[in-house]
Amino acid sequence: MGKYLHCAQLTNKIYFGAMSSIKEARDFILHGYREYLPHVSIDCAIFGYHDQQLKMLLIKPSFLDGCCLPGGYIKRGETLTQAAGRILEERTALHSVFLQQFYTFGNPGRAKLKTFDVKSFEETFGVELASDNWLLDHTISVGYYAIVEYSQVVLQTDAFTESLQWCDIDALPPLLFDHNEMVSSALRMLQLQIYHQPIGYNLLPAKFTMPEIQVLYETILGKKLDRRNFPKRLLSLGIIKRLNEQRSIGPHRSPYLYKFDKRKYEEALKNGVVLAF
Amino acid sequence: MGKYLHCAQLTNKIYFGAMSSIKEARDFILHGYREYLPHVSIDCAIFGYHDQQLKMLLIKPSFLDGCCLPGGYIKRGETLTQAAGRILEERTALHSVFLQQFYTFGNPGRAKLKTFDVKSFEETFGVELASDNWLLDHTISVGYYAIVEYSQVVLQTDAFTESLQWCDIDALPPLLFDHNEMVSSALRMLQLQIYHQPIGYNLLPAKFTMPEIQVLYETILGKKLDRRNFPKRLLSLGIIKRLNEQRSIGPHRSPYLYKFDKRKYEEALKNGVVLAF
Repeated sequence: MGKYLHCAQLTNKIYFGAMSSIKEARDFILHGYREYLPHVSIDCAIFGYHDQQLKMLLIKPSFLDGCCLPGGYIKRGETLTQAAGRILEERTALHSVFLQQFYTFGNPGRAKLKTFDVKSFEETFGVELASDNWLLDHTISVGYYAIVEYSQVVLQTDAFTESLQWCDIDALPPLLFDHNEMVSSALRMLQLQIYHQPIGYNLLPAKFTMPEIQVLYETILGKKLDRRNFPKRLLSLGIIKRLNEQRSIGPHRSPYLYKFDKRKYEEALKNGVVLAF
Repeated sequence: MGKYLHCAQLTNKIYFGAMSSIKEARDFILHGYREYLPHVSIDCAIFGYHDQQLKMLLIKPSFLDGCCLPGGYIKRGETLTQAAGRILEERTALHSVFLQQFYTFGNPGRAKLKTFDVKSFEETFGVELASDNWLLDHTISVGYYAIVEYSQVVLQTDAFTESLQWCDIDALPPLLFDHNEMVSSALRMLQLQIYHQPIGYNLLPAKFTMPEIQVLYETILGKKLDRRNFPKRLLSLGIIKRLNEQRSIGPHRSPYLYKFDKRKYEEALKNGVVLAF
């Protein structure tokens, strides 16, 4: 039996960024507050879309008994969005992904860990985890989400990551801490966003059919949309345009191809739109 | 000439909750981190609506040279929403107001104060403000907004508040720190919200005309809405119902009265709606 901190004492996720050695991890545990802001962290809900499926990127740190969202702390001098971008890049090698802040979580007792094996943690890293260690104090976490084409992502693990993988959004396991709530909240915001900002530029091929983009919207919204209204409403935003090209997908079936109007897309991303299906 | 901390050193607002004595303020300055979480604060963008006007509640603390949003720190053990509710109540005496988190601001150098007169601050409170004082470290701030009927609010000042007043949303002065950006962001979120959640329950009389609720929406959105589409779209949500009563406002002018369907309103608040004008 190890010695255990109970839930009331470990109210946070302990976040490790990508680390390559025990020494680096030990410095972080003992003195990380010098480089990072204590009491505030970032969690990234990274949605992956591919071929009518929506997934979420989950990490299992080797020193925790379950999965959670990838996260980390904010370096002194970084903006929140820079910190979120760095954390996403550490795990996916993706650069300049559109990240959207969605909610800040700060309830005391956010942890759902019943016990945390301090002794094994201390043995792994060769440190003593004092009760006033900066990692153990109450931390609020700022949630960011992104949506990427997951088949194009090469996931990056490190010395203290047991696994890092895409998981079906409809079949998420119980996550550590308040991270199931975070995923629900991120999904709700993504669903709201697609009524007000265009989506799909990096998720669809350069030329796509109307059914393809409709399926993208349906997958994210989790519901069927009207086959007649959807094209009409979407086209009225002006962010996609029909090409003089068709794709032959079978006898008597050659739907027109569309592409995004990049300029109008960027404008709509900046100024917002109002869409109702 | 006092001694001055420059912008780079004072990157935060120094928040005082309602305080009644120098002693209380001094304890807060020196030891507040024991009761409150350092590095994280709350700012409240409190919109006031009355008679076709939208205003914002601004405070001028006596020790700062300008106006800003009312704010404060989070007590250890409080949720973020509880902290925001407490701060709003301290300034307005309103209880159980619907508060909505809208964004978290954390850029280093958020302050726009050029100089901060430490000596006069120290003299006022009879304390020495050490450079490692908890109030001076980098702080991120979680923004909450609320919308209230401002003619019903009795504002609450305290010993260190020079003024607390409603200011026209279209005529805001330059605010301290990043608070003009906060107000813009809060307004944008309020404008988004009214497409997805009902609004008006506490802002309109119990029975109102269609033009009255349309003006509320127009005031918040800052634009005219179509006189034929608006009633149709709003009624389709089911949150208001027409009464068998008319109000006589002139010869040949007696518009029907409407009221909110409380049950459907609460449902829509919880589950969201999609509205497009």
